[in-house]
Amino acid sequence: MSSRTTSPGADLHLDLRVDHGRGVRVALTDALRDAVRSGRLAPGTRLPASRSLAADLGLARTTVVEAYAELVAEGWLTARHGSGTRVAERAPAAPREPVPPAPPRTSGPRHDLMPGRPDVASFPRAEWLRATRRALASAPDEAFGYGAVRGRPELREALAGYLARARGVRADPDRIVVCAGMSHGLTLLARVLRGRGVRAVAVESAGLHIHRDLLLGAGLRIPPVQVDALGARTETLGRDVGAVLLTPAHQFPTGVALDPARRAAVVEWARTTGGLVVEDDYDGEFRYDRQPVGALQGLDPEHVVHLGTASKALAPGLRLGWMVAPADVVAEIDSGAADPEPSVTSALEQLVLADLISSGAYDRHVRGRRRSYRRRRDELVAALADQAPHVGVGGLAAGLHVVVTVPDGTEGDVLRSAAWHGLAVEGLSTFRHPDAPSGQAGIVVGYATPSDSAWAGALEALCRVLSP
Amino acid sequence: MSSRTTSPGADLHLDLRVDHGRGVRVALTDALRDAVRSGRLAPGTRLPASRSLAADLGLARTTVVEAYAELVAEGWLTARHGSGTRVAERAPAAPREPVPPAPPRTSGPRHDLMPGRPDVASFPRAEWLRATRRALASAPDEAFGYGAVRGRPELREALAGYLARARGVRADPDRIVVCAGMSHGLTLLARVLRGRGVRAVAVESAGLHIHRDLLLGAGLRIPPVQVDALGARTETLGRDVGAVLLTPAHQFPTGVALDPARRAAVVEWARTTGGLVVEDDYDGEFRYDRQPVGALQGLDPEHVVHLGTASKALAPGLRLGWMVAPADVVAEIDSGAADPEPSVTSALEQLVLADLISSGAYDRHVRGRRRSYRRRRDELVAALADQAPHVGVGGLAAGLHVVVTVPDGTEGDVLRSAAWHGLAVEGLSTFRHPDAPSGQAGIVVGYATPSDSAWAGALEALCRVLSP
Repeated sequence: MSSRTTSPGADLHLDLRVDHGRGVRVALTDALRDAVRSGRLAPGTRLPASRSLAADLGLARTTVVEAYAELVAEGWLTARHGSGTRVAERAPAAPREPVPPAPPRTSGPRHDLMPGRPDVASFPRAEWLRATRRALASAPDEAFGYGAVRGRPELREALAGYLARARGVRADPDRIVVCAGMSHGLTLLARVLRGRGVRAVAVESAGLHIHRDLLLGAGLRIPPVQVDALGARTETLGRDVGAVLLTPAHQFPTGVALDPARRAAVVEWARTTGGLVVEDDYDGEFRYDRQPVGALQGLDPEHVVHLGTASKALAPGLRLGWMVAPADVVAEIDSGAADPEPSVTSALEQLVLADLISSGAYDRHVRGRRRSYRRRRDELVAALADQAPHVGVGGLAAGLHVVVTVPDGTEGDVLRSAAWHGLAVEGLSTFRHPDAPSGQAGIVVGYATPSDSAWAGALEALCRVLSP
Repeated sequence: MSSRTTSPGADLHLDLRVDHGRGVRVALTDALRDAVRSGRLAPGTRLPASRSLAADLGLARTTVVEAYAELVAEGWLTARHGSGTRVAERAPAAPREPVPPAPPRTSGPRHDLMPGRPDVASFPRAEWLRATRRALASAPDEAFGYGAVRGRPELREALAGYLARARGVRADPDRIVVCAGMSHGLTLLARVLRGRGVRAVAVESAGLHIHRDLLLGAGLRIPPVQVDALGARTETLGRDVGAVLLTPAHQFPTGVALDPARRAAVVEWARTTGGLVVEDDYDGEFRYDRQPVGALQGLDPEHVVHLGTASKALAPGLRLGWMVAPADVVAEIDSGAADPEPSVTSALEQLVLADLISSGAYDRHVRGRRRSYRRRRDELVAALADQAPHVGVGGLAAGLHVVVTVPDGTEGDVLRSAAWHGLAVEGLSTFRHPDAPSGQAGIVVGYATPSDSAWAGALEALCRVLSP
C-alpha cells in the first residue's frame, strides 16, 4: 500500500508498508518518522489535519490521531492548539560518522601458532549440549534471577572438589569466586588490592601485556621480578609491594617451573609482610612428563589467591574462570566494596560447567586434550631437532606453548620470515616487562592453537621458517 | 590400603587411598602432603629413605622417589645431599579464618514484590535449549576463541533488526556493543567518559543506587536532575556535566515518560555542549496501553547511547545486554582504550540469543510476558481501588512495577507493616539521590517478580498491608 497526499504545508509521499502483522497505525507512524528523519518533511512544516490525511489515505481518523500523538511523544512533531501539528524545530543531526567495521571473521594467518589459545575446534559441542539439557532440567527458578557475585553454589561445589583433586588446591566452596575468565578475576583482585591501599603489585619480568595493563588500569604500579631458569626470583621481594602475580606451575611465557626454594620464599614473604600472592594457574592441568606440580595455594591458602580458567581446557569464548581466595578477599568481592558491579557471568553457563565437572565429562575432555597436545609437542620437538638443530626448545613438557630460542639478534628476522610464510607466532620480547633488561631471543609457539587438520601444515611452516 | 611405618625421624601413619583410578604414587603423595599439612610430620623431620619406605609399604622404590620429588617441587619437603629428605622448615600457617557462608538459597520473603525483576519461573527453558542446539550446530569454531570486545556479529546483526523494529533505535550492527547486562554497559561507558576527561554525569533525582555507585566508582561526580511528573527536567542541564543518564521511556522508579519537549531539550543540550545522553531503556518492550514510545536514540544516534538488556524480557541470570552508541564510543570500547579487559560475555550465549531473536522466539516470549504482566497490573490496580482507595497508583501502564503513593510520613509505617506480613517491597525514598530534596512518600511494587502461582497470594498480602 503506497499513497500520496498533498496539503498546504507538505508535499507528502508516504510509503505505508503494512506487513509482518504490523498494524496500519504502526506503518503510518514509521512512514511519517522516516519522512521527518530524512528531511523530506522540513522542520516547521505543518502537517495535514488528521481528518484530511485520514481521508486521503483511506484510514480511520483515530489511526492518524494516534500516529501523530506517538510522534509528538517521541519528539518528532509538536502539537499546539491553534497551530496544528508541525514538524519539530531542531538543528539537523550531524552526518553519521563512518564506523570502523568489525574485523572480518575470515581474516587471520594461514598457519596460526599464536600462544595462549587451545584448539577451539575440539570444543565438546555434544557434551556441552547434553550438560545444558541437564542443567536446564534441574536448575531452580532462582538461578535465572540476579545472582550472588561469588557465583552459583553448584559450580563452587564442583570446582572445590575438582581443584583439590586435580591441582592440590585447598578449596572450600565458600572461598571460591566465579569470574569471567582470568583477566576478569585479576581485575576484581586489582580493585580489592587498590581498595586496601596497596600501591604496587610485583609482576614477572616476562608475562602478559594485558595483565600488566589491567593492574596499571586499577591504579597500581607494577615493578618487575626477574625471571630466570628457576622461575621468578621471589627472594628479592620486599615491603614496597603489596602483592605479587606469579605463574608458578608453568611460567608464562618462558615455560619453567618455580623452584621449590622460591615457592617457599614467596609464601614466607607473604606471611612476613602481609602481602598477597596471586597464582595464575592458567594451564596447570597440562603437564606431560609427570603429575602436575600442585598449586602454590596449597602451601598457604591464607596468603595465596589461586586463579584458574576454563579457557585452556574448554574454550576462551565461554568466559569462565574462578579464584580461590582467603576469606577476607572473598568477603570484599562479595560485598561489592571493591567493585559495585554485580556478577557478569551467566548463571546458566555456570550450571552447565558444574554438570560437566560433576559428570566426569570435564576430566575426560581434559585427558583427551592432554594426549593431543602432548603428541603435538613431541612432534614439534622431534621435527625441530631434525630440521632446525641450531634452535633450542625451552620450558617444561607442559602447557600449550613452547619457547623456541634463537641466536641473539635474530628474533626480528625470524618473525619477518614467519610473516612471509603466513605463520603467526609471537616474539619472546613481546612479553618483556618494559622495565626489565632485554634477555634471550626467541619465539613463543602455541602448538595447541590449530585444529587437528591444520596442525601438520603449521608445523611444516614453522620448520621452514626455522630451518637454516 | 592403610599402612604404618616407623623410622628414626618420623612416626609415620599414612592412609593411602587408592581409588577413582588414581595411581598409588598420587595416593602416596597426597598422604604425605596431608601429614605435613596437618603437622603430624613436623618441620625438620627427616623422612625414611625411599628404599626403606618402599619396603615398608610394599611399593616400588621409584614410586616413593617420585612422590618425594613431587613434594620437594611443591615446597613441602626439602632434599639435600647428605641429609636426606626432610619436612621443609616453615612458619606454621595461620589458622583459617571462618568464611561468611553464602546466603542460603532458600531465604527470602514469603511474598516477593521487589521491583526490577521479571518472573524468572517463566524463563523459556525449552526454547533456550532448542536455540542452544541450533547455535552449537552452526557456530563457527572461531566463536569459541577469544572474541572481539563488541561481541558476536550474529547477535549484533539480530539486535540491529530487533531494536529498529521494537524500539525505533537506529542501529547499525557495527554500532552495537554486547555487554553483560545494564550495569556492565554503564561501567564501560563510565570508563569511556572518564577517559575523555568528563568529570560529572547528571543522573535522575530518583534512580538506582547501583548506577550511581558505578559512576562514582569510575571517579565521576553525579549531580542530580530533578524528576517531576513530566520526567527529568532536562532543560536545566548545563555545561558542568559531560553526560546525563536518563530512563526516558519509563522513568525508574516513578514510572512517568519523558515529556516530548524535554526529549527535544536533552538532544539540543547534547548537540550544543557535545555532551552524551545515556538512555537506560531497561523495560522499553513493556507498555500496555499503546505502542511503546520510540527510543530517544532514534532522535539523534550521534549523541545518544541506547542501553538495553535481556534481563527483563528473559532473565537477569543470563547477564546479556547491549548498547547502541556513536562510532567514536564504540571504537574506544573496542580498542580497549577505556578498559583493557576483554569481553566478559559468553560467545555461545550470544549465539543462542541471536538465534532466539532471528527465529521469532524472543518476540513470542516478550508478547506472552507482556500479556501476563499487563493482566497482573490490571488486577493490582483494581484490587487497590477496591481495598485501599486512599492510596494512589502512579506511572504509566508499562513496565514491571508501579509506584503506590501513600500519605506523607507513612512510608516507614507501610514498610514495617509489609515486613510484618512477610511482603518484600521497596520504599520510594530508597531510590532518592542523596542530594535531592525529599519527595512523595510511596512504595515501589514489582508485580512481575512472583511466579504465576505466587502472584495471587502476593497481591493479597499487598492489599492487607495497604488497606485502611
